[in-house]
Amino acid sequence: MPQYYILFLFSLIFFFSSSSHASVQDFCVADLKGPDGPAGYPCKSPANVTVSDFVFSSLAKGGNTTNIIQAAVTPAFVAQFPGVNGLGLSLARLDLAPGGVIPFHTHPGASEILVVTRGHITAGFVSSANTVYLETLKKGDVMVFPQGLLHFQVNAAKIHSSAFVSFSSASPGLQILDFALFANNLPSALVGQTTFLDLAQIKKLKGVLGGTG
Amino acid sequence: MPQYYILFLFSLIFFFSSSSHASVQDFCVADLKGPDGPAGYPCKSPANVTVSDFVFSSLAKGGNTTNIIQAAVTPAFVAQFPGVNGLGLSLARLDLAPGGVIPFHTHPGASEILVVTRGHITAGFVSSANTVYLETLKKGDVMVFPQGLLHFQVNAAKIHSSAFVSFSSASPGLQILDFALFANNLPSALVGQTTFLDLAQIKKLKGVLGGTG
Amino acid sequence: MPQYYILFLFSLIFFFSSSSHASVQDFCVADLKGPDGPAGYPCKSPANVTVSDFVFSSLAKGGNTTNIIQAAVTPAFVAQFPGVNGLGLSLARLDLAPGGVIPFHTHPGASEILVVTRGHITAGFVSSANTVYLETLKKGDVMVFPQGLLHFQVNAAKIHSSAFVSFSSASPGLQILDFALFANNLPSALVGQTTFLDLAQIKKLKGVLGGTG
Amino acid sequence: MPQYYILFLFSLIFFFSSSSHASVQDFCVADLKGPDGPAGYPCKSPANVTVSDFVFSSLAKGGNTTNIIQAAVTPAFVAQFPGVNGLGLSLARLDLAPGGVIPFHTHPGASEILVVTRGHITAGFVSSANTVYLETLKKGDVMVFPQGLLHFQVNAAKIHSSAFVSFSSASPGLQILDFALFANNLPSALVGQTTFLDLAQIKKLKGVLGGTG
Amino acid sequence: MPQYYILFLFSLIFFFSSSSHASVQDFCVADLKGPDGPAGYPCKSPANVTVSDFVFSSLAKGGNTTNIIQAAVTPAFVAQFPGVNGLGLSLARLDLAPGGVIPFHTHPGASEILVVTRGHITAGFVSSANTVYLETLKKGDVMVFPQGLLHFQVNAAKIHSSAFVSFSSASPGLQILDFALFANNLPSALVGQTTFLDLAQIKKLKGVLGGTG
Amino acid sequence: MPQYYILFLFSLIFFFSSSSHASVQDFCVADLKGPDGPAGYPCKSPANVTVSDFVFSSLAKGGNTTNIIQAAVTPAFVAQFPGVNGLGLSLARLDLAPGGVIPFHTHPGASEILVVTRGHITAGFVSSANTVYLETLKKGDVMVFPQGLLHFQVNAAKIHSSAFVSFSSASPGLQILDFALFANNLPSALVGQTTFLDLAQIKKLKGVLGGTG
Repeated sequence: MPQYYILFLFSLIFFFSSSSHASVQDFCVADLKGPDGPAGYPCKSPANVTVSDFVFSSLAKGGNTTNIIQAAVTPAFVAQFPGVNGLGLSLARLDLAPGGVIPFHTHPGASEILVVTRGHITAGFVSSANTVYLETLKKGDVMVFPQGLLHFQVNAAKIHSSAFVSFSSASPGLQILDFALFANNLPSALVGQTTFLDLAQIKKLKGVLGGTG
Repeated sequence: MPQYYILFLFSLIFFFSSSSHASVQDFCVADLKGPDGPAGYPCKSPANVTVSDFVFSSLAKGGNTTNIIQAAVTPAFVAQFPGVNGLGLSLARLDLAPGGVIPFHTHPGASEILVVTRGHITAGFVSSANTVYLETLKKGDVMVFPQGLLHFQVNAAKIHSSAFVSFSSASPGLQILDFALFANNLPSALVGQTTFLDLAQIKKLKGVLGGTG
Repeated sequence: MPQYYILFLFSLIFFFSSSSHASVQDFCVADLKGPDGPAGYPCKSPANVTVSDFVFSSLAKGGNTTNIIQAAVTPAFVAQFPGVNGLGLSLARLDLAPGGVIPFHTHPGASEILVVTRGHITAGFVSSANTVYLETLKKGDVMVFPQGLLHFQVNAAKIHSSAFVSFSSASPGLQILDFALFANNLPSALVGQTTFLDLAQIKKLKGVLGGTG
Repeated sequence: MPQYYILFLFSLIFFFSSSSHASVQDFCVADLKGPDGPAGYPCKSPANVTVSDFVFSSLAKGGNTTNIIQAAVTPAFVAQFPGVNGLGLSLARLDLAPGGVIPFHTHPGASEILVVTRGHITAGFVSSANTVYLETLKKGDVMVFPQGLLHFQVNAAKIHSSAFVSFSSASPGLQILDFALFANNLPSALVGQTTFLDLAQIKKLKGVLGGTG
Repeated sequence: MPQYYILFLFSLIFFFSSSSHASVQDFCVADLKGPDGPAGYPCKSPANVTVSDFVFSSLAKGGNTTNIIQAAVTPAFVAQFPGVNGLGLSLARLDLAPGGVIPFHTHPGASEILVVTRGHITAGFVSSANTVYLETLKKGDVMVFPQGLLHFQVNAAKIHSSAFVSFSSASPGLQILDFALFANNLPSALVGQTTFLDLAQIKKLKGVLGGTG
Repeated sequence: MPQYYILFLFSLIFFFSSSSHASVQDFCVADLKGPDGPAGYPCKSPANVTVSDFVFSSLAKGGNTTNIIQAAVTPAFVAQFPGVNGLGLSLARLDLAPGGVIPFHTHPGASEILVVTRGHITAGFVSSANTVYLETLKKGDVMVFPQGLLHFQVNAAKIHSSAFVSFSSASPGLQILDFALFANNLPSALVGQTTFLDLAQIKKLKGVLGGTG
């Protein structure tokens, strides 16, 4: 039967080789030097793709939380982790020191699912109907935040808390409310007109966050 | 030739009739009494659909602007205009009296395109990178607001201004920042922690907008 | 407290800066010099994007209607308005002088929503089941045309009428029936065979519209 | 080792059973009695699904071509073949007797790919730029028709020709140009205004196709 | 100024109330009693939605690994966690005792991203080009598995290892290779013909997994 | 009336010319030299597109079945047939000599619809619930295989059988189970651990299919 096997080997490999070439779209590891497009980055040549394109090790340690919010977001979005390009999902790690806060923010292009891996986290989102969905989550608890809605996470433990958050997009975006309002040159009067905040409050936070105008 | 025509008529109508039945998905006018689903409402039976399902007349007049923001948003979303169900677009009308403001808000599930039909409107949005894109638009000017980003519109004329805005979804959603923060029972301390606003400011706006806590 | 604020400023800006870089897909202004793709054009570098990429002023005036159809379509599709690239919507302006007609046409890749801004417009579309949905619209009336179906607009007023039409695609396409049939080199006999129109009628319209064969 | 196997059997089956229940969305065979929705019909209960839901035998024979167009379209769309519901594809069979014609038509919601299985077929489509793409296809030749564009097929052989056509939607729709223009109650004057056809031509074809007005 | 505030309160709440009603599609918590559809389950009435619909606590503990594969998969798919319905993402927890294995499987409708939370896991997937992408992951390491490709996870530590896996679908499906081949009534001869496995091997595994034929 | 026509010709052509330019996305013939992206290849310039881009003749003859599986798959995916780029569908031809088998495989990114054009074919797929859907199909019979599920085709006739298969993607992928398991360098021990196959069986098939390790 050896001849049989040799024939088997050669003929099969010969035969399916053309169709294998058609299968380049199993994945599309981002070539981050290429121009981005509405569906993501161009694909790195499959010949140059290795397992390291699909593995990301920078979430093993939490980000540095010795900052004023005592918290850190470490993203594994397409810009950091090219293997997720075109696959419609990504990941990030949250770290909150005691007292830490991820302030109100949205992801314009993705829903989010959070799982607590250490400590306790109080998380909430607000719907278009202005209803608050608020819960204090223990280790292992999961919470989902629907696309585009304002939400936040606050450390509810006396110890360091952490979580993984995954997204329904390789590039979910991240718009932090305070930065959008106060960390740019949007004139204070216009901020007041469009938020009903007092001018003194606006100028105070613009000062803190480096905004002008 | 009359026989020819009669044959033509009968045979064609007979022949394509079965395939016509397959074409029910030209449109899917919402049956608003049915349960909503992730892709929209169930379809009204095509036999009961008339042209009035595809026509909406409530944008002919602007909404009442004798209110504190001196502005009005009149939507033609799927809930008001069932004909757009499943078609991936909808419309609304903005009216701004002198001094009128549509305060900071987002549409969680849609991009928006605005065209000024009367007066002048100052409109702006903020990107995830906290850059402000701000312009004063004249009658006939068009501006696009990418999905999920915070934006606003302010009357820049001494007269009543108005605009039509269209959306890339039949149900774009509308989350007004002030209402999300201050018009519900989210505890003031938590609002403060997650927005860096002063407690006095929060309590003042909660008072105005009917929030508690 | 000043030190507190300075720390706040520096640490926050330092901290979120990496995640901000991930958020490039808030928008994707078309680089029209790049090669088009199935999802649209490659993105212009965000560093070069300004508010003028999101604003379009060419719809302020109607197109010239001193032509045989006494009508004009002025598009703000991605080719004219790069800011809509990848956002799934676009806009156009219709102008119809008295007697003006936008003849039967389809948009192969988009649904359309029309709002009358001046005059009266008679608009209609035909479903796959050959049912006609026909209405005469007044100023402010809205009508939706489901994707891919044949439709038309006719001035129903003695004055100039105009409308804005928005689409569920940045590149909705526009196939005008008469041009598809008569303004090219499709042999007249083949047009006859596939439309049942008389040869004389075909040759007459081919003559008018510059078709050959 | 028998004990090992028995343990293996029981534990594995026990263990994965809960996750199997989550997998109901492998397929969604249409319950055609349920209300259609924008994404298709509700799913038949998986417990009642059998292989016959995924098999369709009505394309084995061609449709009857003893009609004036001497042609037949036999669809396997979701309305005839519930197994394709939600899967984004469907099929049909074309039969053209000598002289047979599938007249100009569009599929509003799908692209089409045709493969000739007998005879010769002349097929063509017209782009938005009014360019004609025309070819006479032999047995085994394949042609693709992009979504929403006007196209036709004509028998180019002296024998019966046939083809299979597949679509990128379970419900591609089918709008036949002549039927849309002439087989309904759209007033002849309005047809003339919106097609530039002569009134006599319109009335002749309305007569043939059973249109009124 | 109290009057001002009261007016503010009443008018704003009155004014935006109609548009709030349009925003029902912020989320679509599954009504699991309703019929599933191609896009997911019908939505639970927003009035009955509470924060508990968005929180899932069953991943806090790992599944029981005292089984032959010494491993457990605990899903938070739409069937277990209705809050993810229509949001395009879900989560599961993997637990692998020493020697534990999640055998070769695919998710027909989703890509997967895995993050190790304890121990070491050797994970791999195979592309259409038959290339193996294999890595041993430490705590905090992340790996992505592109949609539909065969993959597996094996405990590489002497201790219990665990991971969270998220998916780009609320209903990713789960097809375990051995169960697909050996745990049903597919005739052994046909399994042999379509896998090239020896009949004895097939019958042995059918015996273990409860298959017949 | 000649002047009328000349005016008609010039004005119409002049008038719609700008909007025609917007319609470049009727189709997007792949420029296979460009970098692939998540949504497909960049578009060939429309000016260089001819009808030959939309026609594919390589399916007229079946592939060579004088090989060990006595079968052949001839694809018309985007890599072979650039005209399908971005259109969400493709085609292939199956040929099975007497005794021929298309072994167990999946298409990671597409559903499949098969129509038998000669002979008899026994086809089957297995669901996530491990149910087998198995049927012997005659000429003209159609069967659909939902996305990502394991399936196979076997010649059930004493003569050569053939079929056309169409897919809901221009690049459906093709993962052949035996090749994924045995035709690469995945260590035999790991294959055993993740498939429960005996080592001897694994080494035998690795030998046949050219695998190592």
